Amino acid sequence: MKLDSAGLRVLTREECLHLFSLTPVGRIVFTDRALPTVQPVNYYLDGEDIVIRTASTSKLAAATRSAVVAFEADQIDVDTRTGWSVTAIGHARAVTGTWERQRLEALPLVRWAPGGQDHFIVVRAEQVSGRRLI
Amino acid sequence: MKLDSAGLRVLTREECLHLFSLTPVGRIVFTDRALPTVQPVNYYLDGEDIVIRTASTSKLAAATRSAVVAFEADQIDVDTRTGWSVTAIGHARAVTGTWERQRLEALPLVRWAPGGQDHFIVVRAEQVSGRRLI
Repeated sequence: MKLDSAGLRVLTREECLHLFSLTPVGRIVFTDRALPTVQPVNYYLDGEDIVIRTASTSKLAAATRSAVVAFEADQIDVDTRTGWSVTAIGHARAVTGTWERQRLEALPLVRWAPGGQDHFIVVRAEQVSGRRLI
Repeated sequence: MKLDSAGLRVLTREECLHLFSLTPVGRIVFTDRALPTVQPVNYYLDGEDIVIRTASTSKLAAATRSAVVAFEADQIDVDTRTGWSVTAIGHARAVTGTWERQRLEALPLVRWAPGGQDHFIVVRAEQVSGRRLI
């Protein structure tokens, strides 16, 4: 068992990807007008890709076109003070092809926010890291 | 009631600061070796400052010295699909003065991770924003 400098257990890439598959909500981190920004979103782990739906007119859609972003998911229990956090870093891209779009529309990805969801963003999990507080 | 483009209710600064006072865990967003990074941390809202404890040798301590960072907290209920998210953006600084350090040590700020916590980071909530999914 490998621990980091804070005493947290370091998770393997496989453990991180498994944990990404367990929750429907994560947080995408990007830059908006030169400032760091973070926004919770629904997502679906499609292989090693994070798939997000949003409105094509959204700030998120505009700011993540071809950007390198971070994506984080966690489950933290305040009562027991246990939990885990996983982060993926990679290039985000807007889905433009008809076939890929049709395939992604068939995924069990439900967006909770009532606004538009005509735009798909895919973040490739190029670097993955995670920690567990035990 | 003001809604954003995604149909989420836009929270006022006062509402956001109140919500920041409700949870002990948030996520700090910073840049590490030119890549976006996000890390869950315990925190305490001290007036309009986010106070975080970490080890002085940590990546977090090194990367946030005099940087502009984002700090996010949320509470999202997967079953009811409701929740809120608040974000503060501001300058982070390392606490170096003895008197300020003594004052911060008296705050009810408990770090769950077992590693060192000899270093205080203060993030001034200069820009605050928040959304509620209702």
